[in-house]
This record gives sequence, structure tokens and C-alpha cells, in this order.
Amino acid sequence: MDWQRRLQERLGETEDVVTRWLPEETGHQKLIFQAMNYSVLAGGKRLRPMLMKEVYRLFGGQGREIEPFMAAIEMIHTSSLVHDDLPAMDADEYRRGKKTTWVVYGEDMAILAGDALMIYAFEVAAKAFGLTEHPMRVGKAVGLLAEKTGIYGMIGGQTVDVELTGRPMTKEQLDFVYELKTGALLEASMLIGAVLAGTGEEEQRKVEQMARAVGMAFQIQDDILDVTGDEQVTGKPVGSDEKNSKTTYVTFQGLEGAKALVEAYSRQAIEILDGFPAENPFLRQLILSLINRKN
Amino acid sequence: MDWQRRLQERLGETEDVVTRWLPEETGHQKLIFQAMNYSVLAGGKRLRPMLMKEVYRLFGGQGREIEPFMAAIEMIHTSSLVHDDLPAMDADEYRRGKKTTWVVYGEDMAILAGDALMIYAFEVAAKAFGLTEHPMRVGKAVGLLAEKTGIYGMIGGQTVDVELTGRPMTKEQLDFVYELKTGALLEASMLIGAVLAGTGEEEQRKVEQMARAVGMAFQIQDDILDVTGDEQVTGKPVGSDEKNSKTTYVTFQGLEGAKALVEAYSRQAIEILDGFPAENPFLRQLILSLINRKN
Repeated sequence: MDWQRRLQERLGETEDVVTRWLPEETGHQKLIFQAMNYSVLAGGKRLRPMLMKEVYRLFGGQGREIEPFMAAIEMIHTSSLVHDDLPAMDADEYRRGKKTTWVVYGEDMAILAGDALMIYAFEVAAKAFGLTEHPMRVGKAVGLLAEKTGIYGMIGGQTVDVELTGRPMTKEQLDFVYELKTGALLEASMLIGAVLAGTGEEEQRKVEQMARAVGMAFQIQDDILDVTGDEQVTGKPVGSDEKNSKTTYVTFQGLEGAKALVEAYSRQAIEILDGFPAENPFLRQLILSLINRKN
Repeated sequence: MDWQRRLQERLGETEDVVTRWLPEETGHQKLIFQAMNYSVLAGGKRLRPMLMKEVYRLFGGQGREIEPFMAAIEMIHTSSLVHDDLPAMDADEYRRGKKTTWVVYGEDMAILAGDALMIYAFEVAAKAFGLTEHPMRVGKAVGLLAEKTGIYGMIGGQTVDVELTGRPMTKEQLDFVYELKTGALLEASMLIGAVLAGTGEEEQRKVEQMARAVGMAFQIQDDILDVTGDEQVTGKPVGSDEKNSKTTYVTFQGLEGAKALVEAYSRQAIEILDGFPAENPFLRQLILSLINRKN
């Protein structure tokens, strides 16, 4: 089977898992269920749950306790987008061509829908205790989910990003935001896959390093695409970072320097992956495609 | 020791636990840590963590794995207040005589601080896996924390409350909002105490019933105080529910009917408590004081 067909197949599997764990739209609180489901089903690459599952596969995981975590990470990711789009934050009315949650359901319901997705993620993740014979692994995964998405992870990165909006950042601050805002969720995804598959501490440390390298490459590639990308493909106007005086890796390293960094981080990630005794060619290809993407 | 002194002592212990689990205000994301801590330390009765600990004591709990959960429930409770006060929700500028979080830190930081408290609650709760020999109990407690605070609990109640603001509610809708918006957090508190202490399913069901009765009595007492209370003691203007056309138990049952219901729910709660083989006189007094409060 060729890469594109396999990707579509796995994407479909991932979509099924994410959808299966969404709440039923019934009862007094129907409106919040609708707002949650609208937000999650508005699209997205399902990258995080897919990476989670593929790392789990790499280390021989075969159970179903991974599934609630796949849904949970996508819910938390979505909740952060719902709140980011609010009028008091980025005031975005469209995302991926669809009206944002606050535009459709109102600002109050969008705040509550984000909250609801965040907490429901943990409610769903906790169902994994009923699907495993290794409660300590699930316990560790719940802890990682919170740690990597909370104040020392995604939310910590968002805060600094919001605080410094419109002001120039130092290289150190930019690294901090990239590592936390984007990187931490990728780390959570891959680490949870590894932990649930029963890997040891040392492998977990390597998976974390690999995820961090993928996150940095992914993010710097974003900076590059903002300068060199095709608007038709990226869906975003070229040069918007410069127009918004946004500090990026291109600011510090120039275009060629940024490209060299993407190259270096990719090599690092693939080297770590290839160093594991087991193989997952699909995961390898997925990581490469993320880094070399055009949108 | 008399009741008031003992209450102050236990309140002090609870405050210590809650404070100990707050984040240190250091690093790039210092501002969010400050906003979180400001919100949690702005006061409150610390009722939920205190009830959790006392139910844990009732069933012979002696470990320290209860402590992160005590902090966690207070963080989630606070997060809901921080978001409730936002301009897009109730637009409250003061709470308990102090400026609300969005007034001090801005709307964007208040949204993030609420999110941060919500997720940090689970990060802290997950630390209990390192403090227990019973990971399945901690796993169940994490699940309960999410379930009772999420869309089938607190947030579900808030949603319906927000949706129906300014419109008359049916008795069924009012029950739903009372049970979920206030009741569910009390149920979470007491149930988690029971689960961590190692009680069986049947005792857990009774604890849940007891908590539900306490929640209803507490909430209906609130409705009564709005009509009969002393503004100097309650800190709220008398008759505000009627002025705001708010549906309450007094609307449906009249003042005397509402009083009779508080009486009945109290009796039910105390009967369940007295039916357990073990005793916790402080918990008994605490529950009675909640129901018969003047503010």
C-alpha cells in the first residue's frame, strides 16, 4: 500500500476513535455537547492522536487503553483553540474555513465549551483504568497529560505568547514558547504512547527528546513557510509574521539558518527513532512528512 | 475544645494543604502563576477540601494521598469562579470584597488562569499515585474528580444556568442546575474522601446520597436567605432573586415549603451519616452548620 493510502486509512481509524469518545448530544445540557462536538469535528490533522498510537505500536502496544488518551489529547488541543479564538484573545472568526465556536455559540458558551473539553479529556482518559491491567502506567499517563498541557507545558507557553504579543522576544523566550506551546503537546502524545506500551525510563527519555526535536522542526518549518510558502497551499497570507512584527526563528537565524535548523532537528529525531530496536516505517514517514510539509 | 476553635484549627490545616500545592511564582510564565494564586488565595470557606478530609477521616483514612485531591478540588472550584466572573459571563468586578481576576490581570489572562487551574488540578491530583499503595483507588478518584466537575457535573449545571438566565425555569430544570452546579462538587469532595479511604461500593453510594442531600439543603437555604437574610450577615442585598426574576425553590414551594425541604434534606443527610458504624462528630457538626448557616 502506498504512503498516501496508508495515511488516509490511519487517519480514518484515528477519526473513528476521537469521534467515538465524544458526548452524545442529549439531555438538559445538550447545547454544550453540541458546542464541544462542533469544535472537535471542525477538522484538524489529528496529528497528536495519530503520533500517540504509532509510538504505542512501535513499542508493541496492543491494548485499547490507548484510545481514550487519543481522544483526550485531541480534546485538550481543541479546547486551547476554542479559547485562543475568543474575542478577548485572538478574536478569530474563522478557523480552517469554518466559523469559530464563539461565533456560532456565543462567547459564554465558547468559554464553557473549552472548559468542558478540558475536563472531559480527563474524564475520558480515566476510563483507561477500566481497560488495563497496569493502573500505574495509566496513572503516569494521566499525570503526563496534565503536566504537558498545563502551566509547565502548553498553557505555560500560551501565557508567555499572549503576554509578549506585539513585543519583540528574546531567543530564550522564543525557545520557551515553541517548546511549550507546540512542543509539549507532541511530547505528551508520543510519551503517553510509550508509557502505555510499557517502556522503561530510558526509552521514555529518548522518546521525549525525539518529540522535542520533531516539535522544534515543525515550528521552525512554520516560520519558514510564512516567508516562502504558497498562499494557495498554506491557506495563510505570506509574510504575515513580519507584518505583525512577530519574532520567529527567521528573525534570529535568517531563512538559510532556519532551514539548516529544521534539517538538524529532523536528523536528530530520525536518528533517535532509528536507534530503537523495533521499527515502525509508517511513523518514520509520518515524522518526515511533518517536517517537510508545504502547509 | 469548643466547636468554633476546632473549626478554625481544621480550616487552618486545610488552608495549609491548599497553599502548599500552589505553583511557585517563578520563571517565564510567572504572570499566570500569580493570577492562579491570586484567585485561589482570594478567600473562600475551603468547604470542599474540608469535607473531603473529614469523610476520609470518618472511614479511617490516614494517608497523605488525600492532600493533592484537597488542593485539586479547590483549584477546580476556583477556576469556575474565575470564568464565571468574566465580562462575557456574569461580568462581576468584585468577589468577596476583592477585585476579580480579570479586573486585576486582564480578560485574556483570566481565561488562561481558569484553564491553568483546571488542568493543574489534575496534575496535582495525579501526584497522589506517588503517595499511595492503592493506584486503583487514586485512579477512581481522578475519574470522579473529572466526572463530577465536568459536563455531567458542575460544568453541565453552569451551562444550563447560563442558557436559561433571565428565563423562567421548570422545577425539573432547577433541580438539574442545583444538583449539578453546586451539588456535584460536594459529591466529588465527599466521594473522593470515601474512595481514597478504601470504602466499598455500597458505602460509596450512601456517601453520594448524603452529599446530594447536603447540597440540596445548602442550595435551598441560599434561596431562603435571599428572602429572609440579614444583609449585614449575608453580604448580599435581600430580595435580589425576585428582583432578577430568578427562579428559586421559594418560587415553587413558598418560604415555608422551602424551609420544610431544608429540614427534610438535613434529616436525610444526618440519618445517613449516623448510620455508618464509625463516627466523626466534627463532620456531623460541620454538615449541620452548613445547613443552618446565616450567611
